[in-house]
Amino acid sequence: MRSFGSDNNSGVHPRILQAIMDANKDHAIGYGDDKWTRDAEKAVKSLIGKDGIEPFFVLNGTGANVIALQVCTLSFHSIICASTAHIAVDECGAPTKFTGCVLKEIPTPDGKLTPELVRAHLHGFGFEHHSQPKVIAISQTTEMGTAYTPQEIKTLADLAHEHDMYLFIDGTRIANACAFLNVSLKEMTVDCGVDIFTLGGTKNGLMMGEVIVPLRKELAANMKYYRKQTTQLYSKMRFISAQFTPYISENIWLENARHSNAAAQKMAEQMRQLSVEITQRVESNEIFFIAPKNIIDKLLEKYFFYPWDESRNEWRLVCSWDTSEEDINDFIDYLKFLTS
Amino acid sequence: MRSFGSDNNSGVHPRILQAIMDANKDHAIGYGDDKWTRDAEKAVKSLIGKDGIEPFFVLNGTGANVIALQVCTLSFHSIICASTAHIAVDECGAPTKFTGCVLKEIPTPDGKLTPELVRAHLHGFGFEHHSQPKVIAISQTTEMGTAYTPQEIKTLADLAHEHDMYLFIDGTRIANACAFLNVSLKEMTVDCGVDIFTLGGTKNGLMMGEVIVPLRKELAANMKYYRKQTTQLYSKMRFISAQFTPYISENIWLENARHSNAAAQKMAEQMRQLSVEITQRVESNEIFFIAPKNIIDKLLEKYFFYPWDESRNEWRLVCSWDTSEEDINDFIDYLKFLTS
Amino acid sequence: MRSFGSDNNSGVHPRILQAIMDANKDHAIGYGDDKWTRDAEKAVKSLIGKDGIEPFFVLNGTGANVIALQVCTLSFHSIICASTAHIAVDECGAPTKFTGCVLKEIPTPDGKLTPELVRAHLHGFGFEHHSQPKVIAISQTTEMGTAYTPQEIKTLADLAHEHDMYLFIDGTRIANACAFLNVSLKEMTVDCGVDIFTLGGTKNGLMMGEVIVPLRKELAANMKYYRKQTTQLYSKMRFISAQFTPYISENIWLENARHSNAAAQKMAEQMRQLSVEITQRVESNEIFFIAPKNIIDKLLEKYFFYPWDESRNEWRLVCSWDTSEEDINDFIDYLKFLTS
Amino acid sequence: MRSFGSDNNSGVHPRILQAIMDANKDHAIGYGDDKWTRDAEKAVKSLIGKDGIEPFFVLNGTGANVIALQVCTLSFHSIICASTAHIAVDECGAPTKFTGCVLKEIPTPDGKLTPELVRAHLHGFGFEHHSQPKVIAISQTTEMGTAYTPQEIKTLADLAHEHDMYLFIDGTRIANACAFLNVSLKEMTVDCGVDIFTLGGTKNGLMMGEVIVPLRKELAANMKYYRKQTTQLYSKMRFISAQFTPYISENIWLENARHSNAAAQKMAEQMRQLSVEITQRVESNEIFFIAPKNIIDKLLEKYFFYPWDESRNEWRLVCSWDTSEEDINDFIDYLKFLTS
Repeated sequence: MRSFGSDNNSGVHPRILQAIMDANKDHAIGYGDDKWTRDAEKAVKSLIGKDGIEPFFVLNGTGANVIALQVCTLSFHSIICASTAHIAVDECGAPTKFTGCVLKEIPTPDGKLTPELVRAHLHGFGFEHHSQPKVIAISQTTEMGTAYTPQEIKTLADLAHEHDMYLFIDGTRIANACAFLNVSLKEMTVDCGVDIFTLGGTKNGLMMGEVIVPLRKELAANMKYYRKQTTQLYSKMRFISAQFTPYISENIWLENARHSNAAAQKMAEQMRQLSVEITQRVESNEIFFIAPKNIIDKLLEKYFFYPWDESRNEWRLVCSWDTSEEDINDFIDYLKFLTS
Repeated sequence: MRSFGSDNNSGVHPRILQAIMDANKDHAIGYGDDKWTRDAEKAVKSLIGKDGIEPFFVLNGTGANVIALQVCTLSFHSIICASTAHIAVDECGAPTKFTGCVLKEIPTPDGKLTPELVRAHLHGFGFEHHSQPKVIAISQTTEMGTAYTPQEIKTLADLAHEHDMYLFIDGTRIANACAFLNVSLKEMTVDCGVDIFTLGGTKNGLMMGEVIVPLRKELAANMKYYRKQTTQLYSKMRFISAQFTPYISENIWLENARHSNAAAQKMAEQMRQLSVEITQRVESNEIFFIAPKNIIDKLLEKYFFYPWDESRNEWRLVCSWDTSEEDINDFIDYLKFLTS
Repeated sequence: MRSFGSDNNSGVHPRILQAIMDANKDHAIGYGDDKWTRDAEKAVKSLIGKDGIEPFFVLNGTGANVIALQVCTLSFHSIICASTAHIAVDECGAPTKFTGCVLKEIPTPDGKLTPELVRAHLHGFGFEHHSQPKVIAISQTTEMGTAYTPQEIKTLADLAHEHDMYLFIDGTRIANACAFLNVSLKEMTVDCGVDIFTLGGTKNGLMMGEVIVPLRKELAANMKYYRKQTTQLYSKMRFISAQFTPYISENIWLENARHSNAAAQKMAEQMRQLSVEITQRVESNEIFFIAPKNIIDKLLEKYFFYPWDESRNEWRLVCSWDTSEEDINDFIDYLKFLTS
Repeated sequence: MRSFGSDNNSGVHPRILQAIMDANKDHAIGYGDDKWTRDAEKAVKSLIGKDGIEPFFVLNGTGANVIALQVCTLSFHSIICASTAHIAVDECGAPTKFTGCVLKEIPTPDGKLTPELVRAHLHGFGFEHHSQPKVIAISQTTEMGTAYTPQEIKTLADLAHEHDMYLFIDGTRIANACAFLNVSLKEMTVDCGVDIFTLGGTKNGLMMGEVIVPLRKELAANMKYYRKQTTQLYSKMRFISAQFTPYISENIWLENARHSNAAAQKMAEQMRQLSVEITQRVESNEIFFIAPKNIIDKLLEKYFFYPWDESRNEWRLVCSWDTSEEDINDFIDYLKFLTS
């Protein structure tokens, strides 16, 4: 089975699986007090290029997001995000349940917040009847497959800081943004004044695992407690951290992202040649397109993928670190057959 | 490194790791909509021997516990448990945070609740000033390494039902209880009138994974939402469910438990011969013992294990599915050397 | 001081204050187990004209709203409301904190939800990644001073029930709607299929107090626990319930609303004659209008009232049960002076 | 009806009711931005005798407690209290629901925590598996009617501060302690190093109202948001604050407490003379005693009061600010008649 449903439909990169197998020897103290985790922390720190940071490994993206939001907020705060954000749409209300905070969801054309869009929600500070804005939460790349430039991120971070707020990046696919923009992870985060971000693994070739990277001391201080309380502290931690060392040190995080980005670019290009309407800029491994229901029904017989906005026949395809030339060619050939 | 710190210090059983590797081919739909998960569900159902149940695979034990407690409660309820219970001591308040409920912690000599102990808390029903008792939560085996007999479980279940309450079993080490008592999992749960329980995997040879088994329809109805909201829905689910099929079908769950139980029995026996005071009945893979600090300090130079009650020099050893004869002999030899 | 800031800036109706004084004799059992509360319950039931309902007296409107929302929801649900709703804007996130639920805030031109607006959010049922829509929450009258007709309410209730959802009315100013539309409270609620609503008192001449009226048995079942846990169970309950008996039996609830509505109508009419732009239909005791900042600054020297949307110079005036002819004439004269 | 059920069964002191009536003129800005509240704040500050503090008026005792606990904690903290504490027993789990924290309930003979009792729970600091102890919460007087001396309070405050924790006093009946020990409120709180406390009103002659007094800047900083979010911000605030000015300035708080204390002393003395076993020291307005069920049933025909521990026939009587000589004599006469 080959799927364009999500980048979590693909399996584990062989080098990563090897690292897991290699870690499966002897005993190790649980919960991260082991040498694999020390090595993985070093790898993350070296990638970020900033002293004194402490990365926290967790099980999955929803977990990473809600922990990051918890360290940023108290229950009377609000969190500003795009209405398409994973935290708003795809986590069954976990951010609200864990933080108690209100999410202020902003409609956007392309999944990207702008200072103009955010500013409309920056009021009521100090007025106790209103939830107090505390976090601007963006996804990089966005759920619409678009990427923020470092300059755009910096502008949002500055806006946040002007109001004593934090800028948080859900970095599930931040590797794809680094690959697309040819920008290092440090340039994308530390250098922009980001306060806290996550680095995804699960959707980019790991078996599982994400890292939360707080870039301010006060955001790191209580994170270990929130990680545990949020059920995201993995007892046999070495099997997550053992993945992150090669993922980062051997540049797999970036290579995988480059691969899935390139697959999406190629696929979108060929779809355009078949006169398929692509509805969003392709700046990562996702393609949004419009096609009539009868064509889609046929495609779904062979491929799994999700509807995006059924009211306008909009659909989403996601390429993976292992999407092959053959996968693309087969899909395009079949689409060509269906549309001709 | 060889550890007696916890059964999560050991690694992954080779047969289980093989199953993970075998599952790493092709693509699969995420979040459990895959054939590995169907197979694992079948294995669980067959083990429980009850029609119509739906098992829910999750990432870890804290997650399993708090999801189970959420489906049983509303925020004005209380949960009755032993003061040594994992949910009371070792989950950083996750059960309280997720449910909003009060935990009524009952001191016990051996980690086991009894009807007498519980009854003292069964009052105030219908009186709105008091949290309403709704769950009796027990651990099998207990955090003190002791095991409830099926008759004891049945008595607690009956007591719960008399008061319109649920009996929940945290079954992180329920395999060890089945092994120790030579009782099937069905006899230990379904046949005793248990309402909901978990079956542990992580501490018994899996890489990760637990199953929540609701035995009442109303407890299953909303569980999928709570699993997602609790950050415990794993996207690449096949890598958990692929472990559970051999774990159950090939009887690894029971064999591993038998092995770790036997190791603890042997070790405790030899410690007794060295006149070490064993403070709890050894009914699983855990040993609680008293030893002077100077001996312990020496032991800790070679082995990792936890203090239990430092005020009385009580310590805990845990054997694993892979604890070897050699591990035991080395430890005992060293202890003999230290105490002679 | 005379204020148009809010209908809670006025004091207590003399008949209500007398009832409080009359209740201040002897001792009474606390928490509502007293004859004043029995009488007040009878008055509410008689007003609603439905057997078997149980009204719950609480301290204030935010309390009433969050208790009502708690009995309707579990933490994975979502609540659909207008983006101007009191629960979304003016309760510092209390609904989110208490329920754990996501609020889906819908922009509206006049504070009123319509089936078309709501339907856009009625999707994802059964899909565990999405919060599950469970409540349509409307305010009667709305925060924009507009009123739903019974037919409009019935249509929303039907829509809710088609999706196994509840219709909740925040009835802080439902008396004003009954007065404006000349419709009984029963016709406005029971007869429309409303599932649960509140009847406000504090903003309509009481010292304090609101009633929550659940119209379904399952919504009443646990309310007493939620009322207590939400800190809204008043120990000396007689001093709230003693207000409600004359409030209802002597028709004060409706007379006060008629008075404040009429004051707003008269004031709006005279403002229009001064060419002031009134931005919302005046269907209760609230007036929204546009005026330049320099005029407003002068008005604020003599009167207290709130800005509504400063970006467009929109302001809000609220009349009270005790707004007098003289209050209106003075305000209008002063406005005339300022604008001439 | 005359009740010994609770001090909230009595009504409103006439001077307080007069103050409410006096406040019922004209309009006032809502939510505390009025002169009555300014005056009441001044009265509280003068009573406490400490610069820079900001008192917060709220509706009731449960509200006061949960707001105070919220400003002291994050969800991974624990709160240490006596197992008889109001926050543990009588608030339907509100403290747990609002804070997410675990309550560590300690059995005591007389409702009083001691350093020895508390110290047993002061462990696990920095260990992320355990909830982190953050608050020592005591009630003054306790729910058993006993009073802490200032020295005892100071010792607990010091213990708290040694561990970076807070000492919180639920001061529902702190007036009774001041009266019993002849100690000023300042000596009982500020001078002992208390971090935050409440001053009760509802049970001591007010219609309703409590004050939360934070004695550290960081505990005051966010309190206004928590007060609103906890549904405890009263819109027509003047009707609470107007009570507190005479309550404090005219020494009613202390006189009422002296009166109810004296009534309890007298009543207990006379009960002892009838050979009734009094089970707790009478250090406030509460009496705990043992009497056979048949006597109690007769007493309950004429008087309302609560069982305390039915398993040992222990009952509770509470005197009020308005308990009269006649009330006492009648009760004692009847008891004499029943026991003779």
